[in-house]
Amino acid sequence: MTSHDMKACIDECLTCYRTCLGMVSEHCLPAGGKHVEPEHVRLMLACAELCRTSAHMMLLGVAEHRQTCRACAEICEACAASCEAVGDMDTCVAECRRCAESCRAMAA
Amino acid sequence: MTSHDMKACIDECLTCYRTCLGMVSEHCLPAGGKHVEPEHVRLMLACAELCRTSAHMMLLGVAEHRQTCRACAEICEACAASCEAVGDMDTCVAECRRCAESCRAMAA
Amino acid sequence: MTSHDMKACIDECLTCYRTCLGMVSEHCLPAGGKHVEPEHVRLMLACAELCRTSAHMMLLGVAEHRQTCRACAEICEACAASCEAVGDMDTCVAECRRCAESCRAMAA
Amino acid sequence: MTSHDMKACIDECLTCYRTCLGMVSEHCLPAGGKHVEPEHVRLMLACAELCRTSAHMMLLGVAEHRQTCRACAEICEACAASCEAVGDMDTCVAECRRCAESCRAMAA
Repeated sequence: MTSHDMKACIDECLTCYRTCLGMVSEHCLPAGGKHVEPEHVRLMLACAELCRTSAHMMLLGVAEHRQTCRACAEICEACAASCEAVGDMDTCVAECRRCAESCRAMAA
Repeated sequence: MTSHDMKACIDECLTCYRTCLGMVSEHCLPAGGKHVEPEHVRLMLACAELCRTSAHMMLLGVAEHRQTCRACAEICEACAASCEAVGDMDTCVAECRRCAESCRAMAA
Repeated sequence: MTSHDMKACIDECLTCYRTCLGMVSEHCLPAGGKHVEPEHVRLMLACAELCRTSAHMMLLGVAEHRQTCRACAEICEACAASCEAVGDMDTCVAECRRCAESCRAMAA
Repeated sequence: MTSHDMKACIDECLTCYRTCLGMVSEHCLPAGGKHVEPEHVRLMLACAELCRTSAHMMLLGVAEHRQTCRACAEICEACAASCEAVGDMDTCVAECRRCAESCRAMAA
């Protein structure tokens, strides 16, 4: 049931989840300033949550993973844009973009 | 930030989460037969997960809660239909329909 | 399977989850200063996560809910202490204490 | 903050989460019989949930990850035993044992 492409998308989602949650805790909170602006932190946390849930839907193998992957692609893009604006978050920008691309393909 | 309508939708999502997860464990698994058909159990688990995550997005207050609420409404309807087909799951059918309606309004 | 006491503990856990996650987003992040000190935000997020998971274990009805409830009581106490130290977080202090008490009883 | 050992434990937890959730959906539900006995399915789902949450606590970097890792080790052992009793679940047995060992070391 879980195809090769879906396995790759689950990988991306869980990697993006780890990156966003780990960076908000280890990087943004200690850095302070623009890194703890409400909208930025909210997006990081929301991106982590939805990545985790998109992986969950694919692991369960329900058809509705398309909808969560589509929503996940959008929040990954929003999170990448926020990370770019804040600066000094290249790893997170790159990971969010990769996950967004993978989720868009899965939702298509 | 969290409006009255959003609070009500968070309530519905967390109630639907509890109902779906509790019923799959206490009702469907012991009942067996049609209650443990793969598609039914998967939908119950996926509905519980997405309800929980939609509440999470609203609690975080990110604009992207619309996308998760829209996806949540769809899986709640699919879960309600599956519960109706299985039978003897009236509470879950009713709760999924209520949550779907609330999430659709929130996504609009 | 789910006793009256367990239902009450699930209620407390989900209420504490909502309170911690909602307050970190709506109250701590906009307030800034001591409210966004790394340890405080981490504890709020960790408390929200473990409350949610303790409820999940009780809803599944597994015996290991005792261990998660015990861990949950500890992090709720730590979160309450952090909220007291930060100040202006009485609702969260009270909710974390209530949840800690309920989880301790469930773990006993 | 996240040490090499902790990164390895996060890896194990997320791998065990994927294995348990994926196998309950793709293997146990279609297989039926002993694979869908209530206690077995509950343990698989509870193990998946707690593995996911233990990873979350380590990613947040809170000291209370010890308690969740300890609880996680216990449920992983219980899940491994259940998988052995059901049979034909060697991958899951091995992964749960590996995760239990890693979590025990992290909790020590």
